[in-house]
Amino acid sequence: MKQQVIKKLKDRGVEIKDMVPILYDLQKPYIPDLTMKECEESILAVLDKREIQHTILTGIALDELAEKGMLEEPLLSILRKDDGLYGIDEILALGMGTLYGTIGSTNFGYLDKVKPGIIKNLDTTPGRVNTFLDDLVCGIVAAAASRMAHHNRDVKEKETN
Amino acid sequence: MKQQVIKKLKDRGVEIKDMVPILYDLQKPYIPDLTMKECEESILAVLDKREIQHTILTGIALDELAEKGMLEEPLLSILRKDDGLYGIDEILALGMGTLYGTIGSTNFGYLDKVKPGIIKNLDTTPGRVNTFLDDLVCGIVAAAASRMAHHNRDVKEKETN
Amino acid sequence: MKQQVIKKLKDRGVEIKDMVPILYDLQKPYIPDLTMKECEESILAVLDKREIQHTILTGIALDELAEKGMLEEPLLSILRKDDGLYGIDEILALGMGTLYGTIGSTNFGYLDKVKPGIIKNLDTTPGRVNTFLDDLVCGIVAAAASRMAHHNRDVKEKETN
Amino acid sequence: MKQQVIKKLKDRGVEIKDMVPILYDLQKPYIPDLTMKECEESILAVLDKREIQHTILTGIALDELAEKGMLEEPLLSILRKDDGLYGIDEILALGMGTLYGTIGSTNFGYLDKVKPGIIKNLDTTPGRVNTFLDDLVCGIVAAAASRMAHHNRDVKEKETN
Repeated sequence: MKQQVIKKLKDRGVEIKDMVPILYDLQKPYIPDLTMKECEESILAVLDKREIQHTILTGIALDELAEKGMLEEPLLSILRKDDGLYGIDEILALGMGTLYGTIGSTNFGYLDKVKPGIIKNLDTTPGRVNTFLDDLVCGIVAAAASRMAHHNRDVKEKETN
Repeated sequence: MKQQVIKKLKDRGVEIKDMVPILYDLQKPYIPDLTMKECEESILAVLDKREIQHTILTGIALDELAEKGMLEEPLLSILRKDDGLYGIDEILALGMGTLYGTIGSTNFGYLDKVKPGIIKNLDTTPGRVNTFLDDLVCGIVAAAASRMAHHNRDVKEKETN
Repeated sequence: MKQQVIKKLKDRGVEIKDMVPILYDLQKPYIPDLTMKECEESILAVLDKREIQHTILTGIALDELAEKGMLEEPLLSILRKDDGLYGIDEILALGMGTLYGTIGSTNFGYLDKVKPGIIKNLDTTPGRVNTFLDDLVCGIVAAAASRMAHHNRDVKEKETN
Repeated sequence: MKQQVIKKLKDRGVEIKDMVPILYDLQKPYIPDLTMKECEESILAVLDKREIQHTILTGIALDELAEKGMLEEPLLSILRKDDGLYGIDEILALGMGTLYGTIGSTNFGYLDKVKPGIIKNLDTTPGRVNTFLDDLVCGIVAAAASRMAHHNRDVKEKETN
């Protein structure tokens, strides 16, 4: 299912290489010798998790159905205008962000507010409905950051002990 | 939007009067003089909240789209067989359950496991996809129970002070 | 830190062997060939996670401080009488339960309501403050159940593919 | 209990007037005619909620106990150095932030990362343990922002209808 998820993200305009630099900028201050390669690995590891795959497929399905006008009102209009009080996009993405611990929530919230890199573009692509997609990308990167922070500590502790 | 949500629930087979006795049985041990009328009021108050309305509309939309075969694979099959590891139905419904405080999570989990009254029927209606609906009903009742518990205490504290 | 956490739980009256049968009863309906050994392994794996260790240490610290009267009012009284609307015990334990996916929330809520085995005893030990401990045990078992459900599926999928 | 909570926050160095400008800066872009008075009202309304009061009292108690050396190891050291992977401070504060809907999670994460105004000062006060306090302030402001966003919409909808 992982390959289907990666393909689906790509079809909607998001590639792994778009998420790597966002994760790098987020974690670089805490891990000085961080490499782009490690960021890519962490994102790919996150996409291995079943619950993250389900979240991505569900969110993108809703975006696509809204784009095609295949949802009923008032849900259709809420999704089409990316109503800031909809809340379901955040609840899904936050769920991903915290699968690696609650520190994921801080990263998720920050990314969702600041919208670095491709996240901003997704939020403003004319003619497309990306109500869920931008939050999903924030959630994936936040989960990867949280996984990386925990993993980095584990390595350090092993080296010390 | 509240009336649309109540109508939508009814179209899918769930009426307020189906949820009232579940809430009553859940809260009766803690509130001896509880009435069915109070249970109905609490459920209606919960359905006033925008985020709860959005959750219900989104969950039911996914059920209906799965029923009509309008979702892509593998999501379609996951929803049609109500895969226990899907997780998105629970994350949405749990979000509702905790809008009135985290004690809602206990009630949500209990209802989702024991499936009293109509919740069990929804889970096993042949030919229907109710993957989200049964969890949504658990979430609504859990939220109403949590609201009632907090409200009941507030009243008691006012009487004492 | 894992050994410190296991010792701390034991000091407060909870051993791994007390949690194993609760997990077994919870998962047996879904995994017919489940063994007690697998249940023990899953609980031990859960106790490896840093965030779960932190939650346990924090919750037990608050129980002990309340027992010794070392918290200020009104917090002291709230913890001593295990006020059902306190909510912080549930929020901590629910956080553990969902580290392996949101299906953990259902198991957590069910256990917290039904209180099987040692969980009930903890809730009613005279002279002890176990406001957090009973929820922590529910959270550990719920996390182990969620981990087991995901792991079991992974094994089956590998055998099929 | 509200007055005790406000006094406790003040004893630890946080007054309502310190939180008002943070909320104002956060919401001003969305509500052009926002006033400081409305921000203050929203923060005070948030502090009326029982679960928010419990969270604040619990978090501050842990900070104070760590400051006085009254917690056991390894918890004492974790709290004293404000270990970024502790996670319990975020889980408590995030719980507050989402009591008014999941949009609170975005504001919480943003504030927790950017640490505007007094939040930064709290994080770096020498000799003090504010491991929970800075997150609690983020959670209070995030909850107040979420409450304000929902409330503002309700008013607009009533004016239109």
